[in-house]
Amino acid sequence: MDVLNIAPVRLEGKKLLVLDQTQLPGREVYIEINNKEDLFDAIFHLKVRGAPAIGVAAAYGMWLAASQISSGDSSEFLEEFLKIKQYIGSSRPTAVNLFWALDRMEGCLKIEIGKNYGEFSREKAVDQLLSEAERIRIEDEEACRAMGELGLTLLRPGMGILTHCNAGTIATAKYGTALSPIYLGQERGYGFRVFADETRPLLQGARLTAWELQKAGVDVTLICDNMASLVMKNGWVQAVVVGCDRMAANGDGANKIGTSGVAILAKEYGIPFYMFVPTSTIDLSTKTGEDIVIEERNGKEIGELWYEKPMAPAGVKTYNPAFDVTPAKYITAVITEKGIVKPPYSENLAALINRAKAGDSDEK
Amino acid sequence: MDVLNIAPVRLEGKKLLVLDQTQLPGREVYIEINNKEDLFDAIFHLKVRGAPAIGVAAAYGMWLAASQISSGDSSEFLEEFLKIKQYIGSSRPTAVNLFWALDRMEGCLKIEIGKNYGEFSREKAVDQLLSEAERIRIEDEEACRAMGELGLTLLRPGMGILTHCNAGTIATAKYGTALSPIYLGQERGYGFRVFADETRPLLQGARLTAWELQKAGVDVTLICDNMASLVMKNGWVQAVVVGCDRMAANGDGANKIGTSGVAILAKEYGIPFYMFVPTSTIDLSTKTGEDIVIEERNGKEIGELWYEKPMAPAGVKTYNPAFDVTPAKYITAVITEKGIVKPPYSENLAALINRAKAGDSDEK
Repeated sequence: MDVLNIAPVRLEGKKLLVLDQTQLPGREVYIEINNKEDLFDAIFHLKVRGAPAIGVAAAYGMWLAASQISSGDSSEFLEEFLKIKQYIGSSRPTAVNLFWALDRMEGCLKIEIGKNYGEFSREKAVDQLLSEAERIRIEDEEACRAMGELGLTLLRPGMGILTHCNAGTIATAKYGTALSPIYLGQERGYGFRVFADETRPLLQGARLTAWELQKAGVDVTLICDNMASLVMKNGWVQAVVVGCDRMAANGDGANKIGTSGVAILAKEYGIPFYMFVPTSTIDLSTKTGEDIVIEERNGKEIGELWYEKPMAPAGVKTYNPAFDVTPAKYITAVITEKGIVKPPYSENLAALINRAKAGDSDEK
Repeated sequence: MDVLNIAPVRLEGKKLLVLDQTQLPGREVYIEINNKEDLFDAIFHLKVRGAPAIGVAAAYGMWLAASQISSGDSSEFLEEFLKIKQYIGSSRPTAVNLFWALDRMEGCLKIEIGKNYGEFSREKAVDQLLSEAERIRIEDEEACRAMGELGLTLLRPGMGILTHCNAGTIATAKYGTALSPIYLGQERGYGFRVFADETRPLLQGARLTAWELQKAGVDVTLICDNMASLVMKNGWVQAVVVGCDRMAANGDGANKIGTSGVAILAKEYGIPFYMFVPTSTIDLSTKTGEDIVIEERNGKEIGELWYEKPMAPAGVKTYNPAFDVTPAKYITAVITEKGIVKPPYSENLAALINRAKAGDSDEK
């Protein structure tokens, strides 16, 4: 896609490059990952963020680190590999996608070892690991693109679209989740007008969403979170698109703090509210949103700007939840890479997941 | 009131002191107003803000400047006074309260000149001007206190109360409008728990509301605007109190940007939404909120923090409305200094204003 000239994690020859998101929007810097320590640092310091992007970076990083294992003995190679895996896994212990990607890389290596036991080729194993990392990246890209195509069927040219936080290309391998239909629409001349909530306290909307949409030539207007009501009242918004961190079996969806408020406003103004949810994010074992624990973060994120300048009286009490849960009743449709799900979510999400599993089995 | 040890505009002996709100919350500095130039500077640079507080500061400033007129001739004195009035009026030409206060001071001087024509006493005139400034301050204080007492009848001890922007003591002579019942409740041991929206982009909630409530010992928790939905969902809020910049005849109320969103959330969560509106703010000649023009401000307020640090990509488009209009249908009650008004607002606001006017006439 021509409009999307950003690749948050990419190989240049054998060089692994990662976009340093902590320097956005001021500077677009790709840092070189030369070893496992560089990768650990990039994940630990949130230079790479967004569940899918972390998974892809970790997969490539495992390949890179494995290529630096000197032993040609399969047991020694595996032992060293598992040590690196554990080290990388400790960079962000709460990131589910990180472990998922690391496990896939381990599985790949074990299959390779099993296949060629007795005549283990270090070079061949490293090649297989690179292929697996590539597959992880391509699968994510395809899932995002599929969500984009499906999402686009819900939108019409010229629409005003409001989004919250960053569910964009830099959080994934490519395209993003909620922003994917916007990029596909941009490529096809849909002429969307996008409103990006700045998304306090960490300003992912201002720093990341506005940046990547602007770079792709999308007509984007940055607003403060509390301006969404007026923008909707003005008749400027025909659809809301957001990502999702975890969706319960009944369709309640946890996402960046503020999402539930946007959903309530959308309902009040009669605007459809679409949540973009990869099937890997749907957790049927979580019954409702009430079972999702909301992470509370340091109040200095509110009271001080980047811990630099006090914006509130010293010692003031704060409440700084990182997420909120949008009840299913406010969600017009859930867009997954396997299809669009509409209410009633309890039945339809389970049916989609079961169909997807059956499909996966058929393919094997 | 013991809990309220802040006086944004006050006399110490013959010294006029004004709280410099631009230095809050970091430093609590009272600047000395020694002449008309100091007063102009304080208003022009928003050191004193809030319609009633500006009016009070201007009234005292006119007295101070008049006391520095050397002529004892009534015509010369009046001529000089009117020049000063015009100069002070140019410090913030859009502030209605500024002109209202200046006009009252002029009226006071003219009555004094008329009364004593031929034997004009410069000293007596200056004394009368000081009395008039005192009256303006006391009237505002009484109106705020009346709103507080009325507002308090709508609240119960232990309630959680959410507020937006700053409608507090530093915006008025004392007590504030929406915060007045909170201070009265604090004095009476009501134990309110207050949630203050930070109020982007200028953070009046973080810088001013959190500061003055904390100083009065009120249990205040600072949140980002987009957290109001979750705080309400958590069951922590039993009432919303906000100020008003201008209310139309049908009860639509313009206030700081974001107020309409808070009102919609309150309705959705079944929480009463109270707007504190001095009768001087009710404009029966404005039919509905549709007739209120929303001021748009410089987008740098969103994209840069205090114009110091870029928080968004260079050149990104922004929309930065300073106010929004909360439709009457979301307002549970309007609290004025003359009484509480409930729907239907078109009839009940007009009736209140007419009663108030009749009352004023009776007093004369």
